[in-house]
Amino acid sequence: MAAHDFDPLAARSDLPAAPILPEGATLNAGRPLTSIPGPSVIPERVLAAMHAPMPNIYEGALVEMSERLLAELPQLAFTDGEAFIAIANGHGAWEMALTNTLSRGDRVLVLESGRFAVGWGNQAAMLGCEVEVLAAPARRGVDPAALEERLRADGGHAIKAILVVQIDTASSVVNDIPAIRRAIDAVGHPALLMVDCIASFACMEFRMDAWGVDVTVSGSQKGLMVPPGLGFVWASQKAIAAHREAGLRTAYWDWTARMGGGAHYMRYCGTPPVTHLYGLRAAFEMIAEEGLENIWARHAVMAHAVRSAVAAWSAPGGLEFHIEDPAARSNAVTTVLTGGVDAIRLRALAEQEAGLTLGVGLGDFQDRAFRIGHMGHMNPPQLLGTLGTIEAVLHAMGAPMGGSGVAAAAAALSGALHAGRVTTAGMRGG
Amino acid sequence: MAAHDFDPLAARSDLPAAPILPEGATLNAGRPLTSIPGPSVIPERVLAAMHAPMPNIYEGALVEMSERLLAELPQLAFTDGEAFIAIANGHGAWEMALTNTLSRGDRVLVLESGRFAVGWGNQAAMLGCEVEVLAAPARRGVDPAALEERLRADGGHAIKAILVVQIDTASSVVNDIPAIRRAIDAVGHPALLMVDCIASFACMEFRMDAWGVDVTVSGSQKGLMVPPGLGFVWASQKAIAAHREAGLRTAYWDWTARMGGGAHYMRYCGTPPVTHLYGLRAAFEMIAEEGLENIWARHAVMAHAVRSAVAAWSAPGGLEFHIEDPAARSNAVTTVLTGGVDAIRLRALAEQEAGLTLGVGLGDFQDRAFRIGHMGHMNPPQLLGTLGTIEAVLHAMGAPMGGSGVAAAAAALSGALHAGRVTTAGMRGG
Amino acid sequence: MAAHDFDPLAARSDLPAAPILPEGATLNAGRPLTSIPGPSVIPERVLAAMHAPMPNIYEGALVEMSERLLAELPQLAFTDGEAFIAIANGHGAWEMALTNTLSRGDRVLVLESGRFAVGWGNQAAMLGCEVEVLAAPARRGVDPAALEERLRADGGHAIKAILVVQIDTASSVVNDIPAIRRAIDAVGHPALLMVDCIASFACMEFRMDAWGVDVTVSGSQKGLMVPPGLGFVWASQKAIAAHREAGLRTAYWDWTARMGGGAHYMRYCGTPPVTHLYGLRAAFEMIAEEGLENIWARHAVMAHAVRSAVAAWSAPGGLEFHIEDPAARSNAVTTVLTGGVDAIRLRALAEQEAGLTLGVGLGDFQDRAFRIGHMGHMNPPQLLGTLGTIEAVLHAMGAPMGGSGVAAAAAALSGALHAGRVTTAGMRGG
Amino acid sequence: MAAHDFDPLAARSDLPAAPILPEGATLNAGRPLTSIPGPSVIPERVLAAMHAPMPNIYEGALVEMSERLLAELPQLAFTDGEAFIAIANGHGAWEMALTNTLSRGDRVLVLESGRFAVGWGNQAAMLGCEVEVLAAPARRGVDPAALEERLRADGGHAIKAILVVQIDTASSVVNDIPAIRRAIDAVGHPALLMVDCIASFACMEFRMDAWGVDVTVSGSQKGLMVPPGLGFVWASQKAIAAHREAGLRTAYWDWTARMGGGAHYMRYCGTPPVTHLYGLRAAFEMIAEEGLENIWARHAVMAHAVRSAVAAWSAPGGLEFHIEDPAARSNAVTTVLTGGVDAIRLRALAEQEAGLTLGVGLGDFQDRAFRIGHMGHMNPPQLLGTLGTIEAVLHAMGAPMGGSGVAAAAAALSGALHAGRVTTAGMRGG
Repeated sequence: MAAHDFDPLAARSDLPAAPILPEGATLNAGRPLTSIPGPSVIPERVLAAMHAPMPNIYEGALVEMSERLLAELPQLAFTDGEAFIAIANGHGAWEMALTNTLSRGDRVLVLESGRFAVGWGNQAAMLGCEVEVLAAPARRGVDPAALEERLRADGGHAIKAILVVQIDTASSVVNDIPAIRRAIDAVGHPALLMVDCIASFACMEFRMDAWGVDVTVSGSQKGLMVPPGLGFVWASQKAIAAHREAGLRTAYWDWTARMGGGAHYMRYCGTPPVTHLYGLRAAFEMIAEEGLENIWARHAVMAHAVRSAVAAWSAPGGLEFHIEDPAARSNAVTTVLTGGVDAIRLRALAEQEAGLTLGVGLGDFQDRAFRIGHMGHMNPPQLLGTLGTIEAVLHAMGAPMGGSGVAAAAAALSGALHAGRVTTAGMRGG
Repeated sequence: MAAHDFDPLAARSDLPAAPILPEGATLNAGRPLTSIPGPSVIPERVLAAMHAPMPNIYEGALVEMSERLLAELPQLAFTDGEAFIAIANGHGAWEMALTNTLSRGDRVLVLESGRFAVGWGNQAAMLGCEVEVLAAPARRGVDPAALEERLRADGGHAIKAILVVQIDTASSVVNDIPAIRRAIDAVGHPALLMVDCIASFACMEFRMDAWGVDVTVSGSQKGLMVPPGLGFVWASQKAIAAHREAGLRTAYWDWTARMGGGAHYMRYCGTPPVTHLYGLRAAFEMIAEEGLENIWARHAVMAHAVRSAVAAWSAPGGLEFHIEDPAARSNAVTTVLTGGVDAIRLRALAEQEAGLTLGVGLGDFQDRAFRIGHMGHMNPPQLLGTLGTIEAVLHAMGAPMGGSGVAAAAAALSGALHAGRVTTAGMRGG
Repeated sequence: MAAHDFDPLAARSDLPAAPILPEGATLNAGRPLTSIPGPSVIPERVLAAMHAPMPNIYEGALVEMSERLLAELPQLAFTDGEAFIAIANGHGAWEMALTNTLSRGDRVLVLESGRFAVGWGNQAAMLGCEVEVLAAPARRGVDPAALEERLRADGGHAIKAILVVQIDTASSVVNDIPAIRRAIDAVGHPALLMVDCIASFACMEFRMDAWGVDVTVSGSQKGLMVPPGLGFVWASQKAIAAHREAGLRTAYWDWTARMGGGAHYMRYCGTPPVTHLYGLRAAFEMIAEEGLENIWARHAVMAHAVRSAVAAWSAPGGLEFHIEDPAARSNAVTTVLTGGVDAIRLRALAEQEAGLTLGVGLGDFQDRAFRIGHMGHMNPPQLLGTLGTIEAVLHAMGAPMGGSGVAAAAAALSGALHAGRVTTAGMRGG
Repeated sequence: MAAHDFDPLAARSDLPAAPILPEGATLNAGRPLTSIPGPSVIPERVLAAMHAPMPNIYEGALVEMSERLLAELPQLAFTDGEAFIAIANGHGAWEMALTNTLSRGDRVLVLESGRFAVGWGNQAAMLGCEVEVLAAPARRGVDPAALEERLRADGGHAIKAILVVQIDTASSVVNDIPAIRRAIDAVGHPALLMVDCIASFACMEFRMDAWGVDVTVSGSQKGLMVPPGLGFVWASQKAIAAHREAGLRTAYWDWTARMGGGAHYMRYCGTPPVTHLYGLRAAFEMIAEEGLENIWARHAVMAHAVRSAVAAWSAPGGLEFHIEDPAARSNAVTTVLTGGVDAIRLRALAEQEAGLTLGVGLGDFQDRAFRIGHMGHMNPPQLLGTLGTIEAVLHAMGAPMGGSGVAAAAAALSGALHAGRVTTAGMRGG
């Protein structure tokens, strides 16, 4: 493997030689960092809120808090529709979405652009739906024109629902949901548009009503910064109407019972997820304090820094972007192809020797790809710590590198440090 | 101010333009990082151990744990002497050391090499000792030859104690304690050698008995990774003998009562510091698991990376090392002079806009210096996150920079990532 | 309302008069206690284990821990069958049990003895099963003879599954599962015996294989001492065989995918419930340290003390047991009828003025009943604190009382304090 | 030993026989309860606040919080004087009080009424003061008349300071501080009145200025509900004036440096006790929310319940109050003499078999006394759990008992449950 040809240590010539770390010693003896595309880093404030004794679950403060959370959820999705909290992971939320809107034999169109929409479609198939997959071009996002063409051919409106992910956590693509909606509207097709926002919610812009989304699905463990264990589903009025006719409804997922008005436990079909609700409360407070649109902007800057690093590292036989279209690279996760570099070894070295966990390349990718999660509770020290450690590992492996990715990322972030508003009052304590 | 002339973003030319962060938004919305020279980062394991209800303090598990901690402390200092835990900060531990060994009117020689030995000497003066200061050359460590010369002049052995710090947290110098011992021995002077290891303990090599140290002082909040609130003092047999004659002894600090054998609370002159002891227990376990010599080696590698960064950044009108002698730069903290760059603004920008707290320049330094703490619970993501964020701030301020410090540090660390022992078994989960 | 006629303060005549608590003050200013029949008190050790950052979820320590937990679950149920962890509450676990073993149109026999078996049956009905309810006599447990008679009439074996709870959390009855099995065997009926152990697991004896149970269902938040959010299902080989033919299977609940061998996330149909698994790990360690049979014995003693208290309090117009048959009163929860005493006011007073949360009377009971949870992590101070506070509230309400329940409970517990093994070594610290 | 002659189980005759707890099993498997006279129960809110990473200690939020705490401390003592926070236990705070106000050779008068004032006096003696002890009658509080007589004999005002405790944690006596002040004023004696409120602060009424106290000492771990590790000293203007002349001053304890205006670390003579300050912040919030006078009233009611229990238990050969004068029994701790009952065994049984830790009898008392702490964060479930468990242990030991103490305590508390303000709105959740 050709070594990189840049020498970041040129300036160091006056320093003593580098110390040798004995074989028995390790640098992996600090605060571990997990930069995977979910579960994301859980804020200490959320963990602390979850460290709490059990309350009265039938009445009082817990019930009030739970009702407030349910009332705030639609606002986060920019919808006037209903929101539901499922004690489940994202796959459970998928099932809640499908069983509440569809019936056996319904045709479902899956817009493939990685791994996850297909997984959702497989669930629909197991529930007895007829599932058809429309694949995006390799290493690209969903093509709205191809969707429009397919829908135009469905003059009888056999297709009842269209499943798509906003961000595919495996490929790291982001799909253009408004364009997909426009394609549907262009042919006046009545199918429900169901969007998986598991990896994008509270990371990238999403406006359910304005974008004409009928069912939105998400989970707690990514942009929402809460450990895995909660799934979220939002339903438009059109989806609620479909729900009334749906043949796949089951008691655990059923929206009607969860819509409120009866005993509070019916909101969760049983005992509420007390501990996770405490965490969610804290996360919602943090989101409100920062502002959802500011969060999207932060993710854009951080993602740009990651992409600056990958571009700098890129070299023949070495790293490159998995998603070729710059506009289709998501702001929450970046999948990096590693060329001739052993990606499993790269991740192992980062985790075992430096305390950094990176995302596995999913499916066919695992030997030749890794993923960087840059979603949720992440600031410059975390991001640059992640990128710097990857770079140290690339050096250690002798991987080809075009230049310093972490240096590029530091420069890329610098424009977003608002020097103008910094205050130095009271900073003379020493 | 002249801008830096390296362009880390050259490789990025194919990327879309950098997104603008709105004025109301911030990147400071992740896990804060505090890279100051103490309190250092407290491991989650230590914080969790401290999150505990109160025990029986007169008997049982707490007493047994406390006795084990007291028994292990001498091993960490490589001494056969006695160890004491004071509920106090480092200044309290200083007072314990002085009051247990000295009497009013005793002459004390302070070896100045920054700020802290002088502070310790001031305490001795307030207790009624006669204090004399022997200053090191500017931006350098203690000169053993000058000490030898001074002691040679003290034929009557008026000097009863010599106070020195191993690492001065303000200047970031490390003093050569064995050389200082040799200087004392060269003239056969009987004064007690008292060493402040507050900023060096469990960071850099220290061998109390082998190095002929009589009294060692440390605190919980630096290399020992426990929040501030405990001071530690170790006493050689020679110091214990001096203690029996000392006129400054008081009940709270008194070693005789604390040496054990009576009721357990006498170990602490009253209620033991339960919560901190739980934290110390966890920290000692972590130290035992990693190995003290491995910890020293890790600090050496990490410090070398920091120095590689500072060397790379160094530029006329910009950053430079405060300590000029490469051999006298400590492995726990690095004081960086900032030339024409406003150091207070630099720290404010890092903290308020990026979530990174850096150490204040102490005393005269505060406008033109900052300090990087690299002690204790620190791994590559933390260190490179620290250095990368400093670099982003330097870019944002338009500071002169010779090159990328974080790129240099990543390269410098890479040699210590032991690729050979990494295992990839079981790493194909996706 | 007739006041009680015992005077526990007779001996106090030499004391000063009781101080008056000002209207603005409250006694509710200490550590709250929740003695409800689930969620039970979560041990601090479990909460601490859950206070942890996110790990690598695809490989390494989390996966190993998860596999160990799945391997240990069958041992806790005394079965050689399979165990599954659902991210769900108990109602979700019900749905996992039903969808994996039944098909649309299957007949299900529900053995009613309170509220919960009926709820489970309602889920089966919504899934398309034909549900038939066989009710127990009022305030009693399931009658095995009635079951035997019903099954004898089902010569064609139309009944595919029999649903029963071991303990009904509402009525507090405990059903005799071995006797129910014997009734089934007496007619050689092949229906699956499905037992809800949500309120009994790790509280009362349960031996799945020895008792001929085919499907067992439980949840995390009662005897297992972990916050709500996990459901557990165990399946016998007969149940697994039925699963292969079941028509109601869905992807989220499906046992086949969860049985292991593939990627680890398939164990949970998606992202694993990391935080709850950490809690479960701690709870399993506590259970192993105490021993499951010892836990059952502890619950028996504690429940006996509760019953001693209720018996002592019992008075015309006042409190009495809901379950009339002493042998059918469970060891995990006790439902107390309150006669002429306002049960809602009683609970409100305990919670708002004293910091004790009691279980609501479910369904028709709520005005005239409350429930005491005595399951899981509970020792004499908690139990006697619960009972003493109830007694203080009864005094405050002027409720009829036959005698002191908490005095009776203290006496009842005393026989289980093993004076013989107590050690006083090292207890002279003062 | 004669057994008790009351039978609390009489009403239970229809219940099945008590289950036997196997030898290998234990009831000690729940949430441990520590009812000792300090460290008291730490609220979860305080522990959670302490579970926090290290901040910038030179500037910003930590410094602001610290200054607020220092500003609020005088209000809690009802003084216009100065307050100081020492990183130390109560014995350290004693030393801060003495060294800041006295000189070698000064005469100090100790008002003995247990163990602690004498201990404080011993510290003064070691510092070089002349210490004289005026002892209270056995099992009683300080006699103001005797003090007045002694002071009248000190016409030359040789006595510079009078040391007294408000509550002696060993004997559980409460002294009448206003009466002591009146005795001093009756002879116009200028000695400083120095009061140890370690066991009484935030438990019983204390008004420093109104009561003419010159120096007040307390600690974090009792009424202030924070783990041990902080000492507090308040100084009147008269004490501050004495401080300026005091010869015993040392750097660590010195008030002048701690009075503010310089660098913030001088408030603590070095690194501030970050973690404890976070806990103290939470505790102060809780105190403000409840109200200090309400807290005193709660302690009065709870102590009355404890005394009702002890009175009920009292029997020849069995338990009795250590303090004979009902008016001199403190509201924070109760020392119980155990007559023919082995007190060490009693405590061992409670702790090892039931999870309840009781206070050791200090000094000569330890075989024949134990102490009940009822200070700080304590509500009816905790108090009645404590008393009920003691009663179970007394039964198990066959100790003589006049009647049920826990039944008496439940009745005694009932008058303080404000039935009138309870709300039942929203309590029909089931």
